[in-house]
Amino acid sequence: MWFTEHYQNDIKFSIEVQEHIYSEKSNYQQIDFYKNKTFGTFFTLDGFMMVTQKDEFIYHDMISHVPMAVNPNIKNVLIIGGGDGGTAREILRYKSISSVDMVEIDERVVRLCQKFLPQTASSLDDDFRLKIYFEDGLKFVQNSSSEQYDLILVDSTDPIGPGEGLFTYEFYNNCNRILTKEGILINQHESPYYEQDAYEMKRSHSKIKKTFPIAKVYQFHMPTYASGHWLFGFASKKYDPIKDLKSNLWNNLNLQTKYYNTDLHIGAFMLPTYVKQQLESNY
Amino acid sequence: MWFTEHYQNDIKFSIEVQEHIYSEKSNYQQIDFYKNKTFGTFFTLDGFMMVTQKDEFIYHDMISHVPMAVNPNIKNVLIIGGGDGGTAREILRYKSISSVDMVEIDERVVRLCQKFLPQTASSLDDDFRLKIYFEDGLKFVQNSSSEQYDLILVDSTDPIGPGEGLFTYEFYNNCNRILTKEGILINQHESPYYEQDAYEMKRSHSKIKKTFPIAKVYQFHMPTYASGHWLFGFASKKYDPIKDLKSNLWNNLNLQTKYYNTDLHIGAFMLPTYVKQQLESNY
Repeated sequence: MWFTEHYQNDIKFSIEVQEHIYSEKSNYQQIDFYKNKTFGTFFTLDGFMMVTQKDEFIYHDMISHVPMAVNPNIKNVLIIGGGDGGTAREILRYKSISSVDMVEIDERVVRLCQKFLPQTASSLDDDFRLKIYFEDGLKFVQNSSSEQYDLILVDSTDPIGPGEGLFTYEFYNNCNRILTKEGILINQHESPYYEQDAYEMKRSHSKIKKTFPIAKVYQFHMPTYASGHWLFGFASKKYDPIKDLKSNLWNNLNLQTKYYNTDLHIGAFMLPTYVKQQLESNY
Repeated sequence: MWFTEHYQNDIKFSIEVQEHIYSEKSNYQQIDFYKNKTFGTFFTLDGFMMVTQKDEFIYHDMISHVPMAVNPNIKNVLIIGGGDGGTAREILRYKSISSVDMVEIDERVVRLCQKFLPQTASSLDDDFRLKIYFEDGLKFVQNSSSEQYDLILVDSTDPIGPGEGLFTYEFYNNCNRILTKEGILINQHESPYYEQDAYEMKRSHSKIKKTFPIAKVYQFHMPTYASGHWLFGFASKKYDPIKDLKSNLWNNLNLQTKYYNTDLHIGAFMLPTYVKQQLESNY
């Protein structure tokens, strides 16, 4: 038995299933946990790969450490999505962090990851700095008071299904409003390679660059996402992700990371020409 | 009908075949050409993906322009492998190049690419600077006189089958001997992600760093190779790929490229921590 994800109608990636651990249709989406020899435990939402034990460190390193190395004074963090807990796990490694609000629309994702994927979800159990809200992220930012977060991490699914509202002007405007003057927004920014992903990438970037004075994009190698070429957006009111990188400060923290390092940080913003052109195009 | 490549026994990537254009068993390997809607024409050797119309620009940009931007005085080039013609095509865009010797063990690859894949192979038709030798690359470098090439590009298959000799000390030592004092060697350097690829990556790097005073590795996003995370090696007698990069000179050439640019050049050498550790490990 194989789990298969279609990257296009005519392109597919398949993983042999040793065990279909669990399957449930929640109020929001179809949730499945599987086990595979190479990738370990992995889970999917509506048939799309979310997290594998083998390569989750790549995604979670890149969403978390890039902004933390630019502004080491970040104290209050909002995570939108991220129900598997990997993003919270990395952020909570910083002793300087005072509070993390995590807003996950689907409580079942959190509960099931706590049960089947402790590698990422054990961080959600017992840190007094973390509060989890089982709410719609779009509504949460609407109802949040202004200038209260130093960092927002949008660890979302694709803009189809429950993640759709997190790719709208309304959402980005509210993020801007509730971020402090030194605030940074990181968002899951799709991929430049396959047509539908590239379309969403351009659409998202077009909106973010109209909302924030600084809007950059950075890349990483994510083998279990379509094409393996995936992006995060870095938007901010003040900080440039390269000019304001505090390499020495970050390295002095002595955090052990498997993917991220401060040289890679710089390299990740150096994009292929065709990706730069896609992002510069008026959309 | 689908073309399927197994990345591991339990991981596979599949491409729907609109047309199986051609199939032949040459003296060296099984050669197949296919057509797919997303990737266009692509060809495989012994069932492994070599080139697709959609993403060949990535591989050929990165093997060619990185060394040319470090040493713009390169005149005499040796390409080992590269039967599809994409590497020769990019190198021959430089007017400063005087001669390119291309050594492809399997004439049938060249002839069939000329017929079915003109996007890469048309460069092999009529440039007076290019000579093609249908010989074993390992023997060719053994029999070449010393210090005659400024650049060697090893555009090879994996170290299984006909490509095997191109991953040996004997081969690297001969490359070193036939390169000028300013010589650069670029080689197809496998991938850090799946176990067998990572094993070959470490083995290859271990040998090259014992052969050349400067031995670095750089990465690129290649969606149709296993994991999408692929590497080239940059070995040289004199030039550091970052310190000696001539960005202004290269940009003044006004070559249009879809993947390569001189910022990306720098970024490509910034490797994830786990890849750096694999490469540093004594092997």
